[in-house]
Amino acid sequence: MAGRLHAALDALPPGSVALEGGFWARLQDLNHTDIIDHCATWAERMGWIANFDAAAAGSAFDRAGIEFVDSDVYKLLEAMAHEVARTGDEQLEQRYADIADRVVAAQEADGYLHTAFGRPGQRPRYSDLEWGHELYCFGHLFQAAAARLRSGREDRLTAAALRLADHLHATFGPGGRAAVCGHPEVELGLVDLYRATGRDQDLELARLFVDRRGRGLLGPIEFGPAYFQDDVPVREAEVLRGHAVRALYLAAAAVDVAVETGDEALLHAVEAQWKRTMARRTYLTGGMGSRHQDESFGEDYELPPDRAYAETCAAIASVMLARRLLLATGDPRYADTIERTLLNAVLCSPREDGRAFFYANTLHQRTAGALADESVASSRAHGLLRSPWFDVSCCPTNVARTVANVGELFATGDESGLQLHLYGDFSAGTTLANGDRLEVRVRSGYPNAERVEVELLTPLPAASRIDLRVPPWTDGRATVDLGTGAEPVPGRQIRVAGPLPAGTHVVARFPMRPRFVAADDRIDAVRGQVAVEKGPFVLAVEDVDLPSGAHVADLEIDTSTPPLATPDGADVRVLIRRRPDSPWPYRDLTGAELRDESHEAVVGYRPYYRWGNRGPTTMRVWTPRH
Amino acid sequence: MAGRLHAALDALPPGSVALEGGFWARLQDLNHTDIIDHCATWAERMGWIANFDAAAAGSAFDRAGIEFVDSDVYKLLEAMAHEVARTGDEQLEQRYADIADRVVAAQEADGYLHTAFGRPGQRPRYSDLEWGHELYCFGHLFQAAAARLRSGREDRLTAAALRLADHLHATFGPGGRAAVCGHPEVELGLVDLYRATGRDQDLELARLFVDRRGRGLLGPIEFGPAYFQDDVPVREAEVLRGHAVRALYLAAAAVDVAVETGDEALLHAVEAQWKRTMARRTYLTGGMGSRHQDESFGEDYELPPDRAYAETCAAIASVMLARRLLLATGDPRYADTIERTLLNAVLCSPREDGRAFFYANTLHQRTAGALADESVASSRAHGLLRSPWFDVSCCPTNVARTVANVGELFATGDESGLQLHLYGDFSAGTTLANGDRLEVRVRSGYPNAERVEVELLTPLPAASRIDLRVPPWTDGRATVDLGTGAEPVPGRQIRVAGPLPAGTHVVARFPMRPRFVAADDRIDAVRGQVAVEKGPFVLAVEDVDLPSGAHVADLEIDTSTPPLATPDGADVRVLIRRRPDSPWPYRDLTGAELRDESHEAVVGYRPYYRWGNRGPTTMRVWTPRH
Repeated sequence: MAGRLHAALDALPPGSVALEGGFWARLQDLNHTDIIDHCATWAERMGWIANFDAAAAGSAFDRAGIEFVDSDVYKLLEAMAHEVARTGDEQLEQRYADIADRVVAAQEADGYLHTAFGRPGQRPRYSDLEWGHELYCFGHLFQAAAARLRSGREDRLTAAALRLADHLHATFGPGGRAAVCGHPEVELGLVDLYRATGRDQDLELARLFVDRRGRGLLGPIEFGPAYFQDDVPVREAEVLRGHAVRALYLAAAAVDVAVETGDEALLHAVEAQWKRTMARRTYLTGGMGSRHQDESFGEDYELPPDRAYAETCAAIASVMLARRLLLATGDPRYADTIERTLLNAVLCSPREDGRAFFYANTLHQRTAGALADESVASSRAHGLLRSPWFDVSCCPTNVARTVANVGELFATGDESGLQLHLYGDFSAGTTLANGDRLEVRVRSGYPNAERVEVELLTPLPAASRIDLRVPPWTDGRATVDLGTGAEPVPGRQIRVAGPLPAGTHVVARFPMRPRFVAADDRIDAVRGQVAVEKGPFVLAVEDVDLPSGAHVADLEIDTSTPPLATPDGADVRVLIRRRPDSPWPYRDLTGAELRDESHEAVVGYRPYYRWGNRGPTTMRVWTPRH
Repeated sequence: MAGRLHAALDALPPGSVALEGGFWARLQDLNHTDIIDHCATWAERMGWIANFDAAAAGSAFDRAGIEFVDSDVYKLLEAMAHEVARTGDEQLEQRYADIADRVVAAQEADGYLHTAFGRPGQRPRYSDLEWGHELYCFGHLFQAAAARLRSGREDRLTAAALRLADHLHATFGPGGRAAVCGHPEVELGLVDLYRATGRDQDLELARLFVDRRGRGLLGPIEFGPAYFQDDVPVREAEVLRGHAVRALYLAAAAVDVAVETGDEALLHAVEAQWKRTMARRTYLTGGMGSRHQDESFGEDYELPPDRAYAETCAAIASVMLARRLLLATGDPRYADTIERTLLNAVLCSPREDGRAFFYANTLHQRTAGALADESVASSRAHGLLRSPWFDVSCCPTNVARTVANVGELFATGDESGLQLHLYGDFSAGTTLANGDRLEVRVRSGYPNAERVEVELLTPLPAASRIDLRVPPWTDGRATVDLGTGAEPVPGRQIRVAGPLPAGTHVVARFPMRPRFVAADDRIDAVRGQVAVEKGPFVLAVEDVDLPSGAHVADLEIDTSTPPLATPDGADVRVLIRRRPDSPWPYRDLTGAELRDESHEAVVGYRPYYRWGNRGPTTMRVWTPRH
């Protein structure tokens, strides 16, 4: 293997960014007080943690849940590991350790650790790589262990993960069985382990798994080999395709492998795939994967808002991929994607109280989604509002681990300074070339307000700099003020260059005028419609905000009147139409159109991610133009 | 039970309509020479007929296919039964008898007959009513037997069917187990048996099954109880919902039961459901059921052309339902639906050579569908062109039985005369009140030509009449000529009243000017688009008919120039646009639109049902308006 690629940006060490107030701190507080507790309670209630107890006991048992529920326990542990590192919460540390001990007790003598295979009454190990998800679960254990190791803690779980990685290397490594798992993920976990420990064998195995996929090593399945990206090798593919979470985890792992092994061709292949995927296969919210049937990307421009699957986990995986591409290339478009996807597609999942979740994130709810029964796990196939848990419940724990570690997305830094990608109330710091610390405090009502103030807590030496990403929707209207008056900002970046003394305040403004947005004509499903955006938020309209008796299907927007900012989003002038029903909904174009009655109204559009928090309602992101 | 309802129209006895040339005779010839043979060959090759041999042998066996493949053998037998009755083909009679004998050999002593349940190594009978499809298969056996009995033949299969119906009545009849099958169908078979034999117990059991559904007798499934219409009793439902074939078979059976038991309330309930389904949940082609995931109806107005599931069997079921409602009410809208659905949604399935089929019938193929491997059964989930067979292969045999018996859709008749609903080259006859025969010969190039000539082969007495349906798309331009010059026809019917002598010629014209069609604004997925229709056909454009390098995604129609009739369909003036790719396919409405190049062209649109017969191609029914 060649050496590591020179990445454009460096990740800051864990703990370098602290979210201290406002939008983001509230979210992390909610995660701490509710989301993590909720996930732990349900994982216990469903018997998914007890699976490990039963496996440890050794005799045949009636295992709870689908094959891969071990992975939800691991994502929960990863969330807890991040959260303990962030807060030092000793009660949470104890809760983590209790679950970790139960997990580790189920590890077998040779390092294998999975509750669904290989024990009395179970199918043999590695007998169903297509659907068994064994390596997928291992990957999530590795990620939990790596989170723990990166925070400076070694424990029984991290040791168990390394033993499992050794077993895996012996089984599937060089000279072992040439196979891959039906669900990419172990590759990500192996690189995380490598980065936390420096164990070359883990990187080598990740590289092998990435290289092997796309060569038909998996058996035939109903959805075809593209479902698990076994149709074309990663470096030869042109676009992300098949099951969205699988495709995105694989692409993220491929970037990891490319960066760590100096494989520029592989990096460029993924960049090209990402580019086409963004241009043709991504929802306005950043959501990916439109199809319900196989949770897959559709064809180019197949993006129906009313059947948007846009799985929460796919949005999280898209953030993971964009984060890796941002570090590798420094291109601000990747940070744009992180911001858009996080604020709209990911944060739509948790309910305001953190105790119910969307699995799929539609952009158009045609009939008022029913409230889920809070006492049972929902099927993901139902058109319900947020549910407390699912039979297949990958999303809630994925939200928990993402929010716990969301600080890593805000800034990168290296010996020359800091790069700020997201905004809010936070502190960040890095160590400069001369060994000095560079520390900044950011204060902003962002993402709800446009003013971002960066205070230097330490001097910024000559030849050092702080770069602020300028969001693309500011469209030339961003300004910066270093105490000498606001100046317009050309381009996508505000570069604050040293020398500057400690105490310097930099004030950037990213104007958040609400705006109408239209889609490429080839996205047939939203032709003739507009969406409303404000700052980084996609807005939506719910029928609970309409005049009595009106329905979101009745609206048309008069785009000649611009939307008007409100504290909650934007006021939009609409026409409310009452349409008569025709026995046959198609008519000869030369015939007369049925007459309908209509009246004007001004309607409040609010951030999409908050929809459905006020009871059953219909909703739409895209509204027809009048 | 009250007596039979007075139906508006009476079905003619089997054999009363003979298709003698042109479009329809060619289709029945293709069925005779290819489709039926193809289905028999594949049912044998897949081991689905041999399942009966193995079951008859009595010991445990490795059964081929999904639970309900018995039903495909039964639909094949039904097709053969109709075809033998139609043609008297002795070779086909022998083939029918050979398969029927193998089926009957597997019947158990108590009448039970299914190859997947109750035998050594199999699950117990009726242990999985949700998914086992036992009664569904029985229903198809009953329909095959009834087809045989109606043609005046009794044989071992018809006797076996009656024994099975006795067993079923004893098991699920009054005082028996109060249950229903997860897939409606047995209800249709039971009424067919009742009509062929007059056995009241079969009607009684059908009525019970219709009444029991919607009361939660089936267990919970992932898709919820609406999937198999167990959410709401038939007579209380407001719209067709859930799995489309299940919903339509149930509705058709409910009409049968309503008519035979004098249950007007039940009939009116189904009429209202059909009305709303047509107004809000039906594709332009007549196709029903938009969702791939659970093969279900979507919500009102959820009709994406590019993800139209529109299963062939659902279209066939829609024809069955409309046929029953036509007979019950006489309303020509039901005949309109039969014609539209048959010519567009059903006939799209078979390939020109009758040896490959669409399972789903999309209205928009975004990327050129690959050719199926002719040597293996396809998964229905793949985006292939027509396939020779499927793992779940309900559609080919359903096409075979429908085409073999399609004559019954052309005319109804009673003591007062004949009613002609579809047109082509055929003869039809009925017996009048005075015992005389009324015989007509129809000659027409329909559905490809607008002239329909009806010749009286016998006198039409005073007080007798012949009614011709006027297709709705003639829109006031239809004419009729009884030898005294063409006269415009007001309304939806041409009434030819006696007395008229034998030899009278009636010439109707149904002008087939091609036309642009627009959809209700609430069908978001086709907003701003138009379709092209000509006569009873929906037209489509394929990229094989475009100038080199153009793609159906590039077209816009200038609707100010009307489409021009061609022998193959219509010529349409379009703009062919070349659009630059944007990195992000959404843009601020106040910003500049990307410029593209475009040029005008005239493009041939052809009947939708024939698309994909000339190799891999993209296709669309709906084209954006310029």
